[in-house]
Amino acid sequence: MASTAGHVIRCKAAVAWEAGKPLVMEEVEVAPPQAMEVRIKILFTSLCHTDVFFWEAKGQNPLFPRIFGHEASGIVESVGKGVTELQPGDHVLPVFTGECKECRHCKSEESNMCDLLRINTDRGVMLNDNASRFSINGKPIYHFVGTSTFSEYTVVHVGCVAKINPAAPLDKVCVLSCGISTGLGAALNVAKPKPGQSVAIFGLGAVGLAAAEGARMAGASRIIGVDLNPNKFAEAKKFGVTEFVNPKDHKKPVQEVIAEMTNGGVDRSIECIGNINAMISAFECVHDGWGVAVLVGVPSKDAAFETHPMNLLNERTLKGTFFGNYKPRTDLPSVVEMYMNKELDVEKFITHEVPFSEINKAFDYMLQGASLRCIIRMGA
Amino acid sequence: MASTAGHVIRCKAAVAWEAGKPLVMEEVEVAPPQAMEVRIKILFTSLCHTDVFFWEAKGQNPLFPRIFGHEASGIVESVGKGVTELQPGDHVLPVFTGECKECRHCKSEESNMCDLLRINTDRGVMLNDNASRFSINGKPIYHFVGTSTFSEYTVVHVGCVAKINPAAPLDKVCVLSCGISTGLGAALNVAKPKPGQSVAIFGLGAVGLAAAEGARMAGASRIIGVDLNPNKFAEAKKFGVTEFVNPKDHKKPVQEVIAEMTNGGVDRSIECIGNINAMISAFECVHDGWGVAVLVGVPSKDAAFETHPMNLLNERTLKGTFFGNYKPRTDLPSVVEMYMNKELDVEKFITHEVPFSEINKAFDYMLQGASLRCIIRMGA
Repeated sequence: MASTAGHVIRCKAAVAWEAGKPLVMEEVEVAPPQAMEVRIKILFTSLCHTDVFFWEAKGQNPLFPRIFGHEASGIVESVGKGVTELQPGDHVLPVFTGECKECRHCKSEESNMCDLLRINTDRGVMLNDNASRFSINGKPIYHFVGTSTFSEYTVVHVGCVAKINPAAPLDKVCVLSCGISTGLGAALNVAKPKPGQSVAIFGLGAVGLAAAEGARMAGASRIIGVDLNPNKFAEAKKFGVTEFVNPKDHKKPVQEVIAEMTNGGVDRSIECIGNINAMISAFECVHDGWGVAVLVGVPSKDAAFETHPMNLLNERTLKGTFFGNYKPRTDLPSVVEMYMNKELDVEKFITHEVPFSEINKAFDYMLQGASLRCIIRMGA
Repeated sequence: MASTAGHVIRCKAAVAWEAGKPLVMEEVEVAPPQAMEVRIKILFTSLCHTDVFFWEAKGQNPLFPRIFGHEASGIVESVGKGVTELQPGDHVLPVFTGECKECRHCKSEESNMCDLLRINTDRGVMLNDNASRFSINGKPIYHFVGTSTFSEYTVVHVGCVAKINPAAPLDKVCVLSCGISTGLGAALNVAKPKPGQSVAIFGLGAVGLAAAEGARMAGASRIIGVDLNPNKFAEAKKFGVTEFVNPKDHKKPVQEVIAEMTNGGVDRSIECIGNINAMISAFECVHDGWGVAVLVGVPSKDAAFETHPMNLLNERTLKGTFFGNYKPRTDLPSVVEMYMNKELDVEKFITHEVPFSEINKAFDYMLQGASLRCIIRMGA
């Protein structure tokens, strides 16, 4: 690897030139990492709804041309000045949010919302010099959430890189760098069901199923999946979901349906859609006295969460979480260890796989609702 | 006391014959306690906003004639069948909500919202036979929240009676049976500020000042009092409030003012008014990443709590509490001990005292905003 360190690397990247248009495989130049940056050879990446959301660019400021991608695994190629925790050859997961280890959030036991490196979807450049490390014939291509993993090589701030067990299979653990950890952590770190308790999961996509997996791992006795798509239940059973509620099957609000099923409400609920009505239902379906509702899904800009305050005063708790409350550098290696110890089953989330050259198929699978996670194999 | 056990007691009570009209001192008949009931000789009672709220009967179903009163101390006169935990002579605090010790809430470590004995402001009779124990010439007089302490004797369900240290001065600890414990517990049991953290208290009445006292006891470094009445700050300093914000003094929303004062938000906030806008401000003024907002005040029926869900997703927590999460029988004796150990200063809450014959003066003091707590001395 010494041959490339300090030099521009030319490699393949899937570039989004315009909102909603298929990615185009291009040869890009990837500049060397600057201070506190790391250049990573990406081996596997996967597609997450957030990539699709910003690629569609409906309602946000469009920022193109851009290299998307933020769920991935790879190997450090070279490091910039000041980077002491990582070295070439380390196995890593790049993460869309970071951990500087110095701000109030990083020093707080409770927060993972780093002041310096918190997710920023509007920024398309590196913090160090407000410039991109990607270019084609000298023309810059924007970064996405500091990761841009739809490229054979990418440059990431060291605070957004988790060093993991080198024995972990990179084609599996790549999915742990965003959605799966988000749902898992929402259950294990935030909702924290006690053994024997009941949990409702709103939305049975990858994040919701990861939350169900977390609830199962915590010992929940009943895991009630809520989704508008009845085809999801069969799949959801593999993730510990024991019962299924389709709001379309009922005239009364789903929170009332769940309260009737559970003698007054579930002990915990987790919203993994980002739909404001589902958020309200998820809150109102928890039992008074001790119920905890956790919001995970990101809503639209205009959404307003509204409930009668007596629902709160009757001793319910409402919390939100970001990335499952995991600190990327400190905690993500332990999530990989859960997989290595066979506590957490990652394989069942991986429903499809495509070579890098066919990355647009991964978009199709997701838009059709056919995939949970589609692994994109680089160098192929 | 053996002479009265099993017999009707004739004694003085302050009866509310009509909504908003001065109470009238009457001679009432108090029937003996039935199964699981206790008859208590009330020695001291005090006036709480909740009495005034239901006496004014604006917006609720009026239930008159009624004997109000629910903050009090007294001595057990006699007990009904099945009562084994209490005996004549025990020093007790009657409580407006109860603890049956058998329901799911009582068996949960987290809840104090007993299924059987949870506060019920609409019920004016005893659970055992749906009848009142009070009468005048055979005509029943309704109970209030199961306590009706504006009477020299009252009958209370055993689950609503806390047995306390007989050395505790009853003219002081009577205020611990409602508002003070509510505010104190909201801070100590629910908001739980860590030493050195900042706390905002919305509303500097007795409950808010008790929350401030709890925050001080927990080691909070900054306690920011928020109230529309600037006269309250001088008094509030005695309760540990270090800074004062009057929303009227600012053009921007008070949550923004507090965020600027505290580098992004307070660590904890406690709303003790029951005003929906104050609730929203209390929530939105806590720091992202770790802030916890606790709602205590009871809002109007039509109130809607509304906020942007990103305020939650940025890792804020919103909780409500009822009676400071104290279980009446299990926990209230320990609050009395906090006073006995001089950890908790109760005297500063007591601003006025009147003999029972002048109970209407206590209403005047509260309606004028002149009192925190006015002790009403029975038998005088």
